[in-house]
Amino acid sequence: MEHNSWAATREEHLYLRIAGVIEHQIAHAVLKIGERLPSVRVLSKEQGVSISTASQAYFHLEAKGLIEARPQSGYYVRFSPRQFPAMPAKSQPLRQPVEANAADIIDDVYADLSDTSLIRFSVGVPAPELLPIAKLNKTMQEALRELPGSGTEYDSLAGNQRLRRQIAKRALLWGGHLTDDEVVTTTGCMNALAFALMALTERGDTIATESPAYFGVLQLAGSLGLRVLELPTDCLTGVDLEALKKALERQKIKACLFVSNFSNPLGACMPDEHKKALVRLLEHHNVPLIEDDLYGDVYFGKSRPRSCKSYDESGLVLWCGSVSKTLAPGYRVGWIAPGRYLEKIKRLKLYHSVAAPTLSQEVIGRFLENGRYEHHLRRMRQMLHANMLQFLRSVCAYFPNETRVCRPGGGFMLWLELPSHIDAFDLYGKALRHGISIAPGHIYSLQGQYRNCMRLCYGLVWEPRIEQALKTLGRLCREV
Amino acid sequence: MEHNSWAATREEHLYLRIAGVIEHQIAHAVLKIGERLPSVRVLSKEQGVSISTASQAYFHLEAKGLIEARPQSGYYVRFSPRQFPAMPAKSQPLRQPVEANAADIIDDVYADLSDTSLIRFSVGVPAPELLPIAKLNKTMQEALRELPGSGTEYDSLAGNQRLRRQIAKRALLWGGHLTDDEVVTTTGCMNALAFALMALTERGDTIATESPAYFGVLQLAGSLGLRVLELPTDCLTGVDLEALKKALERQKIKACLFVSNFSNPLGACMPDEHKKALVRLLEHHNVPLIEDDLYGDVYFGKSRPRSCKSYDESGLVLWCGSVSKTLAPGYRVGWIAPGRYLEKIKRLKLYHSVAAPTLSQEVIGRFLENGRYEHHLRRMRQMLHANMLQFLRSVCAYFPNETRVCRPGGGFMLWLELPSHIDAFDLYGKALRHGISIAPGHIYSLQGQYRNCMRLCYGLVWEPRIEQALKTLGRLCREV
Repeated sequence: MEHNSWAATREEHLYLRIAGVIEHQIAHAVLKIGERLPSVRVLSKEQGVSISTASQAYFHLEAKGLIEARPQSGYYVRFSPRQFPAMPAKSQPLRQPVEANAADIIDDVYADLSDTSLIRFSVGVPAPELLPIAKLNKTMQEALRELPGSGTEYDSLAGNQRLRRQIAKRALLWGGHLTDDEVVTTTGCMNALAFALMALTERGDTIATESPAYFGVLQLAGSLGLRVLELPTDCLTGVDLEALKKALERQKIKACLFVSNFSNPLGACMPDEHKKALVRLLEHHNVPLIEDDLYGDVYFGKSRPRSCKSYDESGLVLWCGSVSKTLAPGYRVGWIAPGRYLEKIKRLKLYHSVAAPTLSQEVIGRFLENGRYEHHLRRMRQMLHANMLQFLRSVCAYFPNETRVCRPGGGFMLWLELPSHIDAFDLYGKALRHGISIAPGHIYSLQGQYRNCMRLCYGLVWEPRIEQALKTLGRLCREV
Repeated sequence: MEHNSWAATREEHLYLRIAGVIEHQIAHAVLKIGERLPSVRVLSKEQGVSISTASQAYFHLEAKGLIEARPQSGYYVRFSPRQFPAMPAKSQPLRQPVEANAADIIDDVYADLSDTSLIRFSVGVPAPELLPIAKLNKTMQEALRELPGSGTEYDSLAGNQRLRRQIAKRALLWGGHLTDDEVVTTTGCMNALAFALMALTERGDTIATESPAYFGVLQLAGSLGLRVLELPTDCLTGVDLEALKKALERQKIKACLFVSNFSNPLGACMPDEHKKALVRLLEHHNVPLIEDDLYGDVYFGKSRPRSCKSYDESGLVLWCGSVSKTLAPGYRVGWIAPGRYLEKIKRLKLYHSVAAPTLSQEVIGRFLENGRYEHHLRRMRQMLHANMLQFLRSVCAYFPNETRVCRPGGGFMLWLELPSHIDAFDLYGKALRHGISIAPGHIYSLQGQYRNCMRLCYGLVWEPRIEQALKTLGRLCREV
């Protein structure tokens, strides 16, 4: 996946193309750490662009932490991805499903999602500074003015027509085809996953997930009385298909629930051929796939990765998404394209909630309609990619040498495997006393694994106090 | 309940007090149908009020359909509640619980909640004209301006603090005591009921409801695999406690789900002593009560009826409400005060939806805070009470003589028992061809009862085409 990020698309700005070339040279050690880059003037001549464009290219690389400006001297290469620490090995969970029974510790860690006094590496949402709040508010004004009843009336059962049309349209971006009628809106993505699990399973059934898996899914499974089979997962390519194949032959699995693109917490993105093979395998066993694709729009590469849904020929894939990671977590706007389970999902939505909130769906529908979303995503992806590299660099610089780190090609999360003698829950407690909150690894499994792991969310504005917090975390690790 | 409406509180306007006295005289046949009322001038002298106040009193009674102005002649008594048709007898459902398996017909009737081309007697929501939309929008502007991130951020798990404080404060109105911490917000009231049932029951369990009961509850029970014991219910006093007592002795009931105030569809309001006895009975059997109190604020009497929750000493009552019937169905703002099940409900909310939508809760919190809500409710109750009387009068005038009608003391619904040879589903089809949608009775039971019944929602603006539609319905009934 990584290589995608060095290439720039034709649609992107000129300065990005130039920055991309330099980034590629740094990545492949054509330009070495400490090496001086051509001056802005020279670069502008070489590339046949304006001084301003050349400067922008350097600013962009500087923001990503790849180069640094030294006063009266020029720009120097600061950092090479070659230096990155090792990656964690493929996970090795138990081969037996485990009764989902989420630990109280999660409640402690997430006691209050809205406590903003901490540096919250623990919360997997974009910081407000990354969101287009003024533009959303402007769109809200339009919606209040033009929507009958200003959004006080019940929405239709399937959900806001404008929003569903945009979601269907955007299927082209992930290689699929959808019509409005195949999409049902929900109150956020967790709500979509909940309806999907309720539609497909009964108490005592087994579902399969990645390992480590998003703890929210494990908790949801627990509340529905399900057993969870965690599957070996690679932090680049996602769930191990061979292991899944064997499990399907061995036992009854009622549904799979995978995050296909930039999974949480590993940041894995299944290669296209894996996605296709996965869908074929599940078709063969007639097992539905709940595809949680809520990070798909936050890619650092050339284009949006495909979804498993794009390979779905038999309606077995329930594709779920939301704008909680890109626009407005608090709006609670999500959706599901549930394939052959459409009627079942619509009924569940009706019975459990009557309808989704009218106004917020309309605002998001309008926002997606007029190109504001694409503009925003482009800026957001650049910031997150830069953040991710800064985090990687900081882990390199401050954490114990044996620390292993994943290489997300998108999303918000960095998964760290610390030296095995470190207990991340102890670390969590210590960090909290420094005003830093992290997510300890063992909440991402029902099997007591990943005790020396942690997840860091980099959906923040990069600033000195963030680097300082990472330095503090690194010191706390070294002190153990 | 009825007598409450003849009395006026001190806080109410002078004209309402005078209108109340006249209404009382009409009700008790002190003033007879066709009798001429004193002129405005005489009334003003008699009561020692201004001409304008006297006129307002007559306008008010005219709006309620109780008197009529004859040109050049004055006001005449038009209608006496004494003439009202008979009420349905107490319902007689089976003594056995029935597997909840809601009929497809409900999907037909409610295929599209948002189809506004019909005269929708079928939809139990207030018409937009009854809602304070401009004031809600104004409050929305305040919230957008003052809320951090303009509502894009996740709300706290328990829900908006401002809203929970107001809900807790308003508990005084229904005779109870609540603190903010005992309240959890939800995405509408159905969502509160869904979480309550998920917290209390498992597939195969039996719950008890009124009969007839709101079809949404029957559908929800079905989706959770529950069995439903429908209980005999009186259209004035609600569920038959003696029958419930016997049922509790006979079989395991996991939870009761009752609409304590102005039930849907009967419009029954349990007397205080029934509420108290019910809570004591359930305490004795250690069976929790899910109290759906979403119509409680829409009373036609002197003051808000109490809730069962106000008699709850052991935390067995899960009190649920929303503003969907009074302010904004499309906002999806509801809540639950779940007593001893607080932690369980909070977890379910977290696992199934992360949080409730941020902005709409804040808007409702602010609206409740500043007295706008009370002002709006006063106006809305008057309109609905007048509507209810107009509907009653129209049923009297246009429907077959044997038609029986309930006497709601609040809420939105009129329940009609038509002559036994009439099939309300046939009537539904015929009415639809006249652009009128009604809710046929047998969707309110799992036992195939109430086939000659229907529910009419009077949450509309009373105007000639509404009376015309009722006339058409009456004619269709007579033609059967």
